[in-house]
Amino acid sequence: MKSSAPIGIFDSGVGGLTVMRKLIQTMPEENVVYFGDTARVPYGNKSKETVLRYTHQIIRFLETKQVKAIVIACNTASAYALHEVEKEFSIPILGVIQPGAEAAVKNSRNQRIGVIGTYATIGSKAYESSIKNINPHIEVFNKACPLFVPFVEEGMLEDILTDGIIARYLQELRNAHIDTLMLGCTHYPLLRTSIEKYMGNGVVCVDPSEETSLKVQKILQINHLLNSQNQHPKYEFYVSDSAQKMVEFANMIMPFQIEDVQTIQIESF
Amino acid sequence: MKSSAPIGIFDSGVGGLTVMRKLIQTMPEENVVYFGDTARVPYGNKSKETVLRYTHQIIRFLETKQVKAIVIACNTASAYALHEVEKEFSIPILGVIQPGAEAAVKNSRNQRIGVIGTYATIGSKAYESSIKNINPHIEVFNKACPLFVPFVEEGMLEDILTDGIIARYLQELRNAHIDTLMLGCTHYPLLRTSIEKYMGNGVVCVDPSEETSLKVQKILQINHLLNSQNQHPKYEFYVSDSAQKMVEFANMIMPFQIEDVQTIQIESF
Repeated sequence: MKSSAPIGIFDSGVGGLTVMRKLIQTMPEENVVYFGDTARVPYGNKSKETVLRYTHQIIRFLETKQVKAIVIACNTASAYALHEVEKEFSIPILGVIQPGAEAAVKNSRNQRIGVIGTYATIGSKAYESSIKNINPHIEVFNKACPLFVPFVEEGMLEDILTDGIIARYLQELRNAHIDTLMLGCTHYPLLRTSIEKYMGNGVVCVDPSEETSLKVQKILQINHLLNSQNQHPKYEFYVSDSAQKMVEFANMIMPFQIEDVQTIQIESF
Repeated sequence: MKSSAPIGIFDSGVGGLTVMRKLIQTMPEENVVYFGDTARVPYGNKSKETVLRYTHQIIRFLETKQVKAIVIACNTASAYALHEVEKEFSIPILGVIQPGAEAAVKNSRNQRIGVIGTYATIGSKAYESSIKNINPHIEVFNKACPLFVPFVEEGMLEDILTDGIIARYLQELRNAHIDTLMLGCTHYPLLRTSIEKYMGNGVVCVDPSEETSLKVQKILQINHLLNSQNQHPKYEFYVSDSAQKMVEFANMIMPFQIEDVQTIQIESF
């Protein structure tokens, strides 16, 4: 394995670009291959078996790109599939759950942490287990917020109806006097302003992408695979549905212009 | 082909059960095979190419069940794929768009019809074309309502936030003084009460499933394929994701108890 090999990163759709953005901020000299499973998005209301099968296909696809490490940006795929695939494949595979849990525990003063995510992520209790593994005295308050993703995809980031649905889902977490709120889905950082407004000053929102990026950096360092003196990093984008929608979303949130996105038939991997 | 052969019906997920319910009300002696593509739901924000590919796979699967006719219950698949697949396969394939358009035209007095559906269905202009083919003088007002499906899937059929999103999407149709509103997505009939309350007494909501069922009946009759004297019709249910969610939803809306749902790998067809 060469240090010039790219890092692979994937998500159920385009939300994982928020994680890729952080990854290339942390390691601006790395080449990156992104895959978004836009033909089968979302994963958050699907079964473990299905999400695991999709994850296998995507890792096999990324292997054809000779990636040196893989980041599962999708919280649902991290929760359902990481434990299985990290044993099966030889390259390092990282999810967002463990780094996210570490960041949340580091932040919490009153040992009361809220976790929000899809039905799948919350149902898996993956964040709760990881948090309690670090510190069993922490109380974890879980809440699935399945309408947040469609609201983000509709572009309703700041809206009176968005505030209504935020209040509906988060009231019990506010009443539970948490001081840390885990944003356990790649779409949720885009609602951060509205969520923080509702939760109030005493609550810090944690986005796992920062801690995840640092962890990827550390693992590459340990394996002597960090890329350096790469002045022109190469970013490749692949999706399973039409490229157009990906291009629009990517150009909304990435710090550079994306033009070339390729569509692949992911089920053949 | 034998008249005892089942009718095949499919949808991107479980929403098409509202169409199957109407189908077996109209033809209680028919055997029916239902397929819900729950592993890849929803279709409404995906591209034509992807929806067409999925539709091909599902029709090939239903052919293995020796169906005598196929109903595409999903509006998006009807809009994107019907024209292509009805030429390619030898058994009759029906969508919901043309029957829905006929029902809406029949109902409208003031020749102002509203159409609501997913981004894909609205973007295809399939309903508008079908309506104007029947009567070019009718004015059609289109509106994509992408948040309606997630609200229904959250079970928020009557809720102050649902009323808020209905008002947001439908205000322009109410101001356009339509007298007929096409419910162009299998989930929308479940929001009918809330939608009618907002639109007021002067507006009739049209659900294409009734007209579609009558059309299926007519085609079977013409081809001498109507089943009769079948006292114990057989209903088979298949999905691409886990069976459990399907069973729950089906038992909420079907007039009988469903126990046996089978999961198949649809991408292998």
